[in-house]
Amino acid sequence: MKFNIIKKNFLEGLNTVSKIIVQNTVNESQKGIKIELYKDKMILKGSDSMVFMEYSLAAFDEDKEIITIIEEGQAVVPTNYFLDIIRKAPTEIIEIESNNQTIKIKSGKSEFNIQGYDIDEYPDFPIIDKSNKFNMNTKVFNDIIRETLFCTAVNDQRPILEGVNVILENKFLTATSTDSHRLSKRRLLLENIDESQNFNIIIPRKSLQSIQKIIENTDEDLEIYYEENRIVFVYRNIIYSAILISGKYPNTEKLVPSIFECTVVANSKEMYYAVDRVALVSKDEKNDIVKLAINDGIVNLYAYSKELGTAEEEFFAETYNEEGKFEIAVSAKFLKEAISAINSENVIVKFSGELTAFIIQPSDYHRDIIEVLLPVRTY
Amino acid sequence: MKFNIIKKNFLEGLNTVSKIIVQNTVNESQKGIKIELYKDKMILKGSDSMVFMEYSLAAFDEDKEIITIIEEGQAVVPTNYFLDIIRKAPTEIIEIESNNQTIKIKSGKSEFNIQGYDIDEYPDFPIIDKSNKFNMNTKVFNDIIRETLFCTAVNDQRPILEGVNVILENKFLTATSTDSHRLSKRRLLLENIDESQNFNIIIPRKSLQSIQKIIENTDEDLEIYYEENRIVFVYRNIIYSAILISGKYPNTEKLVPSIFECTVVANSKEMYYAVDRVALVSKDEKNDIVKLAINDGIVNLYAYSKELGTAEEEFFAETYNEEGKFEIAVSAKFLKEAISAINSENVIVKFSGELTAFIIQPSDYHRDIIEVLLPVRTY
Repeated sequence: MKFNIIKKNFLEGLNTVSKIIVQNTVNESQKGIKIELYKDKMILKGSDSMVFMEYSLAAFDEDKEIITIIEEGQAVVPTNYFLDIIRKAPTEIIEIESNNQTIKIKSGKSEFNIQGYDIDEYPDFPIIDKSNKFNMNTKVFNDIIRETLFCTAVNDQRPILEGVNVILENKFLTATSTDSHRLSKRRLLLENIDESQNFNIIIPRKSLQSIQKIIENTDEDLEIYYEENRIVFVYRNIIYSAILISGKYPNTEKLVPSIFECTVVANSKEMYYAVDRVALVSKDEKNDIVKLAINDGIVNLYAYSKELGTAEEEFFAETYNEEGKFEIAVSAKFLKEAISAINSENVIVKFSGELTAFIIQPSDYHRDIIEVLLPVRTY
Repeated sequence: MKFNIIKKNFLEGLNTVSKIIVQNTVNESQKGIKIELYKDKMILKGSDSMVFMEYSLAAFDEDKEIITIIEEGQAVVPTNYFLDIIRKAPTEIIEIESNNQTIKIKSGKSEFNIQGYDIDEYPDFPIIDKSNKFNMNTKVFNDIIRETLFCTAVNDQRPILEGVNVILENKFLTATSTDSHRLSKRRLLLENIDESQNFNIIIPRKSLQSIQKIIENTDEDLEIYYEENRIVFVYRNIIYSAILISGKYPNTEKLVPSIFECTVVANSKEMYYAVDRVALVSKDEKNDIVKLAINDGIVNLYAYSKELGTAEEEFFAETYNEEGKFEIAVSAKFLKEAISAINSENVIVKFSGELTAFIIQPSDYHRDIIEVLLPVRTY
């Protein structure tokens, strides 16, 4: 393999692929980035066994030559070390040549001869089945990730809770996550989809984090292919495929209460910051509990820590509570994260009882999103 | 103690003082910031036993009332927790009231009642002897710190090496640091000082780091008072005093070579980045060694690692070497830090032998600074 390449373009590809590579893998060569050089393009590959990423770079971008391909071939380069060398290369054009497992990198008067990994040990990449497909805007998909990822379980005994359940049914896409203390559910209608397209999959948290890094701050088209045990995202010149979590996601419909005894409509920011301040007292405690007392147009917040002292807050809100004062104790962290996920000017909080789950929704119903939280049973 | 204060001004003082406070101290109340409220000002105090900081805040800044003093008094507040409360306070004016060890903080509808520390346990601050004094520009003093701090020893068996030796003699100030592998020495003439003023002190690294944080990016006047076991800096409304390291600093004059067999004048940036790149290969090794070969107008650099491979660089420089090729092995980290400390367009590197100390100086002699490095004896 032998080629010259423009540093900037090479670096962008290496940076993108490097983000998904882990160094604590059993297969040595999987610690590296695989460079495949063909007669008119380069493909950079990276994998952590569960996810596979391919980054294509054409030799020519319109009329400009990005890669001068001198000899086709392949190499697997040590990720971080190779990236450092390219990043610090002093010239715009970098010359790369590989011979067996030795890779020569030249940039001006700077020359490195480094050890690559064994190409034969590098894992095969999956062949993608393109029969089931739909498109989505990256911004919309990024929102769905933002709204659900934070509610996935971490190190749970049930691995299915460590992903987001995504269901496509009757043109509606529903994304649900729960860590069994709270739940987040976002629904949206996909206009341009065939009614016969249906699936029910669980996408691992880690894969969603990776795809989030790739599409963040973009507003473009994302192609999504789904197979029984795999989901594939195609964004620009990047192919990203992830193995799905197998198993049956629990039915979460029954966790959403439908009868309410107290409702609050509050300004999101005001409520968020009030909880945030009061929680200063309780944040070091195990459960970081905040107590809410709802009373005729006023919400009072209390927190207490044996070591630090007490905190009180009060803010005005529309309250609907026929039975008089309503009190509930909640996790400040969960409450803050739910308000953030809702991301609207005002939130509706509907309580069904002092010891039962309650819901949070945007007051304008602009997006079909619902947060369910369990109260804390002791204060 | 009872007062109202403008959040912004209070926060600035608390932030400044909090930087020097450590939480792993034996005296509980020393973990806090002491607030002393007098009839026309507030003094915030912080200490880590070795250093003492006082931050004064007048009740009025010209005509504007910063603090409304309702009742004089004192309190010691828990540093991080109190800072968080003030930082997140929703209103511009914050009301504080202390009663025994309980401190009430009110900001709008937000109210905290927290536990302070025992005032009686708070350490006394030293009384400053103002008989010996000189002034220095903060920018100049910051340069001296930058040029010497990095060469102080860390966790050395000889605590005196963990500070910077500062000598004032015949109007010349000399700052020296060494970790016994290398040495940095900066000298400058103090024009406006009495010739009879002399001292020879060792300022602890940690104190210099603290003072660096206070004066960074400023260009003002710094008053310096020195006593036998203490140095005091007065900058604006801040008094900062540090206990000196006692003992006799080693005579470092004899470590600076004076006979040279090879000299190189190189562009600082070019040399720095060449060393930086080559060191990519060796940086994970224990000694991160780079080999320099100087040969008639060219400097070649080499590095090698059993695991990673080899790196080579070459750059042009003025070389003065009558005996032909000169080779030496050095620590890349130390070489880079020395070039950075010199901070001039070109550096002169003077070698006295392949196994003896060498020096680095600015080529323009604009500042009187010299770096001494020991070569690495094996390659």
